[in-house]
Amino acid sequence: MKKNRLFVPRGFFLNGINSGIKDRKKRDIALIYSENPCAASGLFTKNMVQAAPVIVCRRHLRNGRAQAIIVNSGFANACTGNRGMEDAETMAYDLACRLGIRKEDVLLASTGVIGRFLPMKRVRQGIRKITRTIKKLSQPEFFAQAIMTTDTTPKIASRQFLTGNRKKAIICGLAKGAGMIHPDLATLLCFIITDIAINSRLLKRALMTAVEKSFNSLTIDGDTSTNDSVFILASGRAGNRPINSANRDFLKFQNNLNEVTKELAELIARDGEGATKLVRIVVRNAHSCISARKMARHIASSPLVKTAIYGSDPNWGRLMAAIGSSGIRINPHRIDIYFGELQVTRNGQSASYAERKAKRILNKKEIEIVIDLKQGKREAEVYTCDLTPAYVKINSCYST
Amino acid sequence: MKKNRLFVPRGFFLNGINSGIKDRKKRDIALIYSENPCAASGLFTKNMVQAAPVIVCRRHLRNGRAQAIIVNSGFANACTGNRGMEDAETMAYDLACRLGIRKEDVLLASTGVIGRFLPMKRVRQGIRKITRTIKKLSQPEFFAQAIMTTDTTPKIASRQFLTGNRKKAIICGLAKGAGMIHPDLATLLCFIITDIAINSRLLKRALMTAVEKSFNSLTIDGDTSTNDSVFILASGRAGNRPINSANRDFLKFQNNLNEVTKELAELIARDGEGATKLVRIVVRNAHSCISARKMARHIASSPLVKTAIYGSDPNWGRLMAAIGSSGIRINPHRIDIYFGELQVTRNGQSASYAERKAKRILNKKEIEIVIDLKQGKREAEVYTCDLTPAYVKINSCYST
Repeated sequence: MKKNRLFVPRGFFLNGINSGIKDRKKRDIALIYSENPCAASGLFTKNMVQAAPVIVCRRHLRNGRAQAIIVNSGFANACTGNRGMEDAETMAYDLACRLGIRKEDVLLASTGVIGRFLPMKRVRQGIRKITRTIKKLSQPEFFAQAIMTTDTTPKIASRQFLTGNRKKAIICGLAKGAGMIHPDLATLLCFIITDIAINSRLLKRALMTAVEKSFNSLTIDGDTSTNDSVFILASGRAGNRPINSANRDFLKFQNNLNEVTKELAELIARDGEGATKLVRIVVRNAHSCISARKMARHIASSPLVKTAIYGSDPNWGRLMAAIGSSGIRINPHRIDIYFGELQVTRNGQSASYAERKAKRILNKKEIEIVIDLKQGKREAEVYTCDLTPAYVKINSCYST
Repeated sequence: MKKNRLFVPRGFFLNGINSGIKDRKKRDIALIYSENPCAASGLFTKNMVQAAPVIVCRRHLRNGRAQAIIVNSGFANACTGNRGMEDAETMAYDLACRLGIRKEDVLLASTGVIGRFLPMKRVRQGIRKITRTIKKLSQPEFFAQAIMTTDTTPKIASRQFLTGNRKKAIICGLAKGAGMIHPDLATLLCFIITDIAINSRLLKRALMTAVEKSFNSLTIDGDTSTNDSVFILASGRAGNRPINSANRDFLKFQNNLNEVTKELAELIARDGEGATKLVRIVVRNAHSCISARKMARHIASSPLVKTAIYGSDPNWGRLMAAIGSSGIRINPHRIDIYFGELQVTRNGQSASYAERKAKRILNKKEIEIVIDLKQGKREAEVYTCDLTPAYVKINSCYST
């Protein structure tokens, strides 16, 4: 109930429209506008090849402040050189003029095909058109639709909670992303808005924690697309005592923010290109969190494991091979593997189990695979999906 | 001509037979036997989970000597604990008794499903049966067939060359391996026999060099299956002056060995599971060989790149994204990319090229992609294949 209701924080306007960038029907320009300047933060791709909007946003975020975000889908504006930089600057400038705000308070994001120039005439038309709708009703769903590329569903998650002084605060996140086999190469965009009052230093800290536990559990270390961006804007309109230290309100905010990003990450994994199953890989009792996570990610990106899951094949041998090649020191003779509750491997060998029962578990839409290393006390979990023929079909036709 | 003729070095007997391990038809037991003890060396998987035959072979190779190799397909004898170790020891012991040689001079390899015990009755029957054929004609083709799993073709390459004292020396290699998307998880087995006289230290050195330039250019760093093994036996029957230093004969031997392993690696890439295209990825003008290779491997294992190649989509944007996420420091504004002779990217941006021409190149069965970093003078090349719906189908049904 609480999960499904959409809460929108005070002071924000959202919309998404068609401007003919992709085609004549699909929404392809999206806007977030706050009535007042917000505390703002962002996290960006670690790819050495960075799209123009990413470079511009890093600069605009230096002062920890922003008031609007403009997004286009269809073209990534990556690998577009000086002209791409000029186009990104123009987008920010146009929007700033229309809204009567500072250019540095505009953030931007693009997603779509790499290496082609933005159709700037249509983009600028779109900016004019969408700013004219600001007096009307806010449309978060249209925003979420307008940022989609290969996504099959828009992705929104929100939470409402009470602050120390009994005020209602709201966090709402909107995301896109679907390519799941190497999510590193499929753009992830996430826009989080909240009406809580918080300083930008703590906002950044909260964002980093939340992203670590959610989107970074979807992806492979340091491997990200040219455009990946996660933004957060806090308008301060909730009426709470402004958060300036890691107090109770901060913890509440952090917990709710974690929930929003985790829900979005799950939505993305579930919407993996051609995916039929959501897979949670848990590595338990490792020496350190880092090694647990490294192994979980390695397993989650193994095509042989992911095709076995697609075929509901209880192939724990492939899991053992992936565990052994993850680069983490292990004792193969101590490894236990579980599919859900069912133990399939004991001390690195087959735990005599009912194959039919294992198949039944792997036939479900949500699968948990637990690897117990029996080394230490740390654990990590990573989300992924199965690898299907449909994935290959989608990606051999679609230009990114 | 020279490539296609099969040369078999003197002093070796090879055969492959059916012993009912897989089914009643397919050959599943294979034997290499040398009339005299050979200088021998082997390279094995770096996976932390190692199959029983790999553990036994490491021990048997300590003295740099071997006389026979017994191989079974169908079961990998990996993740099989103490019983698996006993089974491997029994295989070596049985063969040694039959051939009247030392147990330590027997090497062995298994490939197939992980985690199930070998059907030892059939394996031992097979050993009895195949040793009885030793007086008959040597059958290298049957050997190559008997070691296959998902391979669609047997893989043999051989070379003949003249040594300094005008003697003919021969190198013959037989391999299996097909899973190409992460070859790390698909077992690679390679058996090389030669009649050259060489000491085991130099033999090992030559093997390492040859493997580095061939099989290791197929795989991802340190990521290997539980059973990967490459063996070399040198019978010394060619009549050359025994090679005890890196002299001219050694260089000739090295060059021919490189050619044999490279040809086998190409055969494996071409036989990638469900693959339709052989792809050669060259990274040029890098700071170091290591960084060039790291990048080439990263690109070669990108599913988004491999699906684009399958779809003949001249999607250089995905290449740029993979280049940027390879972990190598680059200047994105200096990168050139070529499909064969056609330049598609200049200084990190689209080099206005004819899309139809690019598509025509990508439609070929053999594709070369060159990435020019313009940083230094080093280069590396890696072989891979495209990623197809057939790959997913094969791997969601076949248990490894």
